[in-house]
Amino acid sequence: MTACIDNPPTLRWTGAQVEIIDQTLLPAELRVVGLTSVDEIVDAIARLAIRGAPAIGACGAYGLVVALDEEAAETLAEALEALDRAADRIGNARPTAVNLSHAVNRVHHRAMSGTTVTEVRALALAEADAVYDEDRAACDAIGRHGAIELAAHQTLMTHCNAGRLATTGIGTALGVVYGKAREGQEVEVFAPETRPLLQGARLTAWELAAAGIPVTVIPDSSACGLLASGRIDAVVVGADRIAANGDVANKVGTFSHAVAAARAGVPFYVAAPTSTLDPATAVGGDITIEQRDSAEVHGTQPRVTPVEGVTVWNPAFDVTPAELVTAIITEVGVLRPDYSASIADALRRAGPPSGGYSNG
Amino acid sequence: MTACIDNPPTLRWTGAQVEIIDQTLLPAELRVVGLTSVDEIVDAIARLAIRGAPAIGACGAYGLVVALDEEAAETLAEALEALDRAADRIGNARPTAVNLSHAVNRVHHRAMSGTTVTEVRALALAEADAVYDEDRAACDAIGRHGAIELAAHQTLMTHCNAGRLATTGIGTALGVVYGKAREGQEVEVFAPETRPLLQGARLTAWELAAAGIPVTVIPDSSACGLLASGRIDAVVVGADRIAANGDVANKVGTFSHAVAAARAGVPFYVAAPTSTLDPATAVGGDITIEQRDSAEVHGTQPRVTPVEGVTVWNPAFDVTPAELVTAIITEVGVLRPDYSASIADALRRAGPPSGGYSNG
Repeated sequence: MTACIDNPPTLRWTGAQVEIIDQTLLPAELRVVGLTSVDEIVDAIARLAIRGAPAIGACGAYGLVVALDEEAAETLAEALEALDRAADRIGNARPTAVNLSHAVNRVHHRAMSGTTVTEVRALALAEADAVYDEDRAACDAIGRHGAIELAAHQTLMTHCNAGRLATTGIGTALGVVYGKAREGQEVEVFAPETRPLLQGARLTAWELAAAGIPVTVIPDSSACGLLASGRIDAVVVGADRIAANGDVANKVGTFSHAVAAARAGVPFYVAAPTSTLDPATAVGGDITIEQRDSAEVHGTQPRVTPVEGVTVWNPAFDVTPAELVTAIITEVGVLRPDYSASIADALRRAGPPSGGYSNG
Repeated sequence: MTACIDNPPTLRWTGAQVEIIDQTLLPAELRVVGLTSVDEIVDAIARLAIRGAPAIGACGAYGLVVALDEEAAETLAEALEALDRAADRIGNARPTAVNLSHAVNRVHHRAMSGTTVTEVRALALAEADAVYDEDRAACDAIGRHGAIELAAHQTLMTHCNAGRLATTGIGTALGVVYGKAREGQEVEVFAPETRPLLQGARLTAWELAAAGIPVTVIPDSSACGLLASGRIDAVVVGADRIAANGDVANKVGTFSHAVAAARAGVPFYVAAPTSTLDPATAVGGDITIEQRDSAEVHGTQPRVTPVEGVTVWNPAFDVTPAELVTAIITEVGVLRPDYSASIADALRRAGPPSGGYSNG
């Protein structure tokens, strides 16, 4: 876990701008970019240059400080108006993760209590720092709780990236992985690649490899067979919003892994700071699911530069148990359970091929 | 369904060579290539220039004729030896689909009964033609049976490509789609893109669009949420091998869709010719699952040139029902069901953020 310490932080406030790793370029290129306007903040969040619910929360929080500096207001009224506009734009840059609007609202609310332009900025910065520090501390605590809860589970599957790159600390789902490593527990990770933008293959693989944690990238669709094979001890994922009843909105594909894990009897954990809990949302069906551009699926795709130390598991097929098949439609008719009988019957009716060769 | 008739067939025997559409280039380029040696036959099958269990069966069948022509044997012994070698190489080009070894064995067996070099070739060609024609007829019959069985189901989800490009006819799973269209039934298709080689986004989308069938490409991992949404009336997929008990080996991801469909109460159909039924394989666990190169997942990927008329559904997130979540790991501890109580309790313990702002 030393290599990753040499990498720049996912985001930081320099005193004059927000610096972020542009995650769209990883793992081919590690480039840090500075954000100095509301436009740049919103763009960075929308195009996923910074992503992960806690990380975009912190980025949005500092975004209000950026907005005040960009506006250079001379009166309190101008400063508060700039805050209102920025809070509205940044808070709505992406709709699903509650952390973004939560963090922006916190900073907005705190700064509004300022009585001078200077005080407004100081309060905004103090609250943004608090958002940042609390998330960092929450990740450490999640790692400690997770290391105890998952102490018996060595081989974990995750989804997307809920790691250092998604938070201001060691991550949520990957915080559990790092927490286990900190405790000296053996741990290895299977990372579904996470189409369309491949955050698993690009980001989770990159940061785990940098930390010296064994990681295997898999196509998303192979996870069900992998879970059924018994090789995975537990699934642990992050979350973008958790409704009051426990329904979890997270990167598309999470639901599929949860259904497959339940069928395979593999425990399914969600790791998230309490800022992701949304008591104002009663059930998952009330959560707005962001629809993204079709160009992410069609057209040019992100390339995955292989990361040293990352392995791939790439089965061409999987096996669906007969109990899940409603019927098998063949040229001799529709076969129904019990398939042992109906398949044998179909083969009798199909007869030997014209050449007389039997496949038996 | 007129446009696709203008396209060349997926494969055909010209009298001197096997001509195939190189499916690795679709949909950007429609290129027909000729195969005139066993090396070229094996390579085309291994790199998925031709793919789909029935199509590689027919390609392998004609491959034995190619082998005889390539060898230009002068004695019966030489011809039979060439047949043996070719049957072994071609039959093992891909391990999972039973149709390939089945078709190669049929042609091999029939040709061996020849008593002259000329007769050996004539018998091989006759049997390869039979494999081709039987598959074509089976697809039509599957389409007729499927149109009756799925008459009440308008919106279908499939996986990978089990269509014209996977068979010598109108396809198996997509044979059902075309069968419905032939009967004048309304039908539309959701096509998971099928990582890593994107046969859904590239091939299914291309051939359905050419046939005028509405098609929407989705990331594989979004299928679970789509099925749970109630928008899909039935799932219909092809198969590479069906064990005697009904377990179905098919493109990786099929199992995941079946589990999700079962949970959502959506019927899950497999469409396949009886040549895909393998009475010699007792259960799915006995089927060899081909592991493919990691470069398919990492590194350069196939590009998807958008096909006119193909839409995309690209949700960034999905919602996992609380009942599937073992526990939620937060910085204030591990929350367990009943989540309505444990989440409310966690929020009380987390307290308001330092700034005093409540998210309520």
